[in-house]
Amino acid sequence: MKQATIIGSGLVGSLWAIYLAKAGYQVEVFEKRSDMRLTKISAGKSINLATSYRGWKALDEVGIGDEIRKIAIPMHGRTIHNLDNTLAYQPYGSSGQAIYSVSRGEINAKLMDIAEEKLNTKINFNQECVNVDFDNGVTYLRHTQTGELSEYKSDVVFATDGAFSAARYSAMQKLDRFSYSQNYIPDGYREILLPANADGSYKLEKETLHIWPRGRFMLIALPNFDGSFTCTLFMPFEGHDFCFNDLKTKSDVDSFFRMVFPDFYHLMPEVADSWNSHPLSSLAIIRCFPWTHGKLALMGDAAHATVPFFGQGMNCGFEDCSVLFSLMKAHNENWSEVFKAYEISRKPNGDAVQDLSLQNYLVMRDKVSDANYQLQQKVERRISELFPNKYFPLYSMVSFSDMEYKVALEKGNEQNEIIADFIKANEITQETPLSQIDKLIHHLFDGSTKIPN
Amino acid sequence: MKQATIIGSGLVGSLWAIYLAKAGYQVEVFEKRSDMRLTKISAGKSINLATSYRGWKALDEVGIGDEIRKIAIPMHGRTIHNLDNTLAYQPYGSSGQAIYSVSRGEINAKLMDIAEEKLNTKINFNQECVNVDFDNGVTYLRHTQTGELSEYKSDVVFATDGAFSAARYSAMQKLDRFSYSQNYIPDGYREILLPANADGSYKLEKETLHIWPRGRFMLIALPNFDGSFTCTLFMPFEGHDFCFNDLKTKSDVDSFFRMVFPDFYHLMPEVADSWNSHPLSSLAIIRCFPWTHGKLALMGDAAHATVPFFGQGMNCGFEDCSVLFSLMKAHNENWSEVFKAYEISRKPNGDAVQDLSLQNYLVMRDKVSDANYQLQQKVERRISELFPNKYFPLYSMVSFSDMEYKVALEKGNEQNEIIADFIKANEITQETPLSQIDKLIHHLFDGSTKIPN
Repeated sequence: MKQATIIGSGLVGSLWAIYLAKAGYQVEVFEKRSDMRLTKISAGKSINLATSYRGWKALDEVGIGDEIRKIAIPMHGRTIHNLDNTLAYQPYGSSGQAIYSVSRGEINAKLMDIAEEKLNTKINFNQECVNVDFDNGVTYLRHTQTGELSEYKSDVVFATDGAFSAARYSAMQKLDRFSYSQNYIPDGYREILLPANADGSYKLEKETLHIWPRGRFMLIALPNFDGSFTCTLFMPFEGHDFCFNDLKTKSDVDSFFRMVFPDFYHLMPEVADSWNSHPLSSLAIIRCFPWTHGKLALMGDAAHATVPFFGQGMNCGFEDCSVLFSLMKAHNENWSEVFKAYEISRKPNGDAVQDLSLQNYLVMRDKVSDANYQLQQKVERRISELFPNKYFPLYSMVSFSDMEYKVALEKGNEQNEIIADFIKANEITQETPLSQIDKLIHHLFDGSTKIPN
Repeated sequence: MKQATIIGSGLVGSLWAIYLAKAGYQVEVFEKRSDMRLTKISAGKSINLATSYRGWKALDEVGIGDEIRKIAIPMHGRTIHNLDNTLAYQPYGSSGQAIYSVSRGEINAKLMDIAEEKLNTKINFNQECVNVDFDNGVTYLRHTQTGELSEYKSDVVFATDGAFSAARYSAMQKLDRFSYSQNYIPDGYREILLPANADGSYKLEKETLHIWPRGRFMLIALPNFDGSFTCTLFMPFEGHDFCFNDLKTKSDVDSFFRMVFPDFYHLMPEVADSWNSHPLSSLAIIRCFPWTHGKLALMGDAAHATVPFFGQGMNCGFEDCSVLFSLMKAHNENWSEVFKAYEISRKPNGDAVQDLSLQNYLVMRDKVSDANYQLQQKVERRISELFPNKYFPLYSMVSFSDMEYKVALEKGNEQNEIIADFIKANEITQETPLSQIDKLIHHLFDGSTKIPN
């Protein structure tokens, strides 16, 4: 029987185990942590994720999308909370399109359950990867509780052990000519759980992603099934008018929320009490190349960890599975060919999803509340309504299609410039009647201006 | 007695040991390799270095410049070897200015000798750094021959263990928010020793740096005391008309040299025979930040390893010693203050020396043989002759002054643009008489054009 090793039973590792098991591999998964399913994980204790098209596609390909849909809450757009307590709503796509809030803990547990249902898959917990012998496909392990050392040899090894991948660090990074960078952004994040009302109902509208954009920082909230919201505050560590280092006391936190997030503070006046329930964490972009060597391949965050601002980390990792699986079939499981094709086709998309994520941070924390951006969005939405098969906004290309990330990035930026020029040249404002905008749009599409599509 | 640990007895570690010993520290140096002085190192077996102003300044500050001058050969300029066997000469600076060829092995051995003369300095060989405890100043070591583990505690710890610093890798890189990148350039290098004539005389002019610029690749040669030259071929690994991967057989190497370096081939027709005496090596730029944490500081290549094309790697590392020493005195040996000041003032210069090095690769392998560059150089040299106290070319600011690298980089690039504009605006060519150029230069300096100085 063909044998595969997977290092890490996180989201990508568990899904990839399901793919390989279906393809007839004996799959041994080694996970450093203990079995998270044996600990009670409250939904709000874990970052929420937004599953979008690429994620669903990869799940559906192995027939498990519907299982996951049971634990997912659709979010059809963004609800912007302004400083003056007014709200604004921006749909993500056309009617029916949504991204889906899922709890990291729940989806991971479900994926592990499904993987373990296969007779030819075993998840070994408390097994830390110490090193990988690329050439011979041997993974060296240490039991985190007993300290016992062991090794496991297989035909092929996949490192899905996250941003701080032990396999990458202990093996790949010592390779000659391995390019690598870890760059922290100046902002950190802290989670806050906004509890449900006493009767279990939601304190904010449910099927939407809430954002409090404040220029250099922002708060977001994603819904959980139990009526609570998982909220995250993103803000610089230091050196700005508002930064984590200045929120030292309970009273600092209290005044901060009261001043900059008044409607949120009204819903959760006890926010300062739960400030320390979650740690302050940092955010990094990690790039490297090559992604494969000998019998080892990096996937997911181990290959291309990103900041979370486009909600594409998990989706991109799941797409790694789709792509690698189709290459595995195309190259008849000749892994050395598969690996070459995988890293060459996929690396530019890993880079692009990172660029998109950084770019979308500016959009979320600042631009969404900017009048020019809102006008641009309105015009763009109208174009895609009038020409639904000819024009796709950047957000849609990334979240509602499987167009390569690098193509979406290039095309999206080109489109943004064209729309901005179009608005300026035709002196369109928020007051311009829709009928007039429609006429101009038709002129644009019938005229000589080239809209990339 | 105040105690200091230095990890690595390379160039920077040995010099820094001398500084600290003079300042009254008990200095323990731990070196992974065995004592290089016990092995016979032929001059040609080790990359040659070019000591310039900053290096001499740091050596003179501890009174050892003259000792090192004894093993240094001045190089007053570049001798360009064209494909048609013609030569061109470009002086590095004004008369009397030179950079100095030294053998890495010889200067390192000399620095270790001087360090060990101090009673309060000990170099411990075959001691590999396994980890550093920042907070307590403890260095964990493993004897490379016996495997014996030990630890050494001191007031302060300096990692001077090179581009692939074990201290950085095992300690700093695991810090939260430690930014790090290692980027390999697509080119590698291989050394070739051009031996002396039978009578011990030099086969090429001695007091100059020889370059065979060929656009995408180049050969260089630096003189040794025994009449030989240490030559280095820099070239892409793959994917170009000429690349290392295409030179597989002895006959490939032979035809390559005959075709692209005809005059060199004439001097060394046996070049293909010694092709494999030195390995093919890669080249990386390594950036990181912070450079200090707790009681540990990174210096030299451990902090800012660069590609070698400006000949500033050692000079910059030696300047780290000057700078750190003056901060140590200014802050009265309050190391936590010293470290903060050191990394804040020095990091932008580490970045700049890397940018300068990459930039100078283009100059050396391509521009030096370009007519526009030569004209630009001629005009610039004339300006600095006419206004020796007002105008300094980039090469002089980097090699013959201790102006901060970041200032030199900015100013140099500004100046280059001004000179290029000046040449274009006044339609200066190689044929323009010097008297006419002088008149235009006087006009430039008296006029409104602002030359940065």
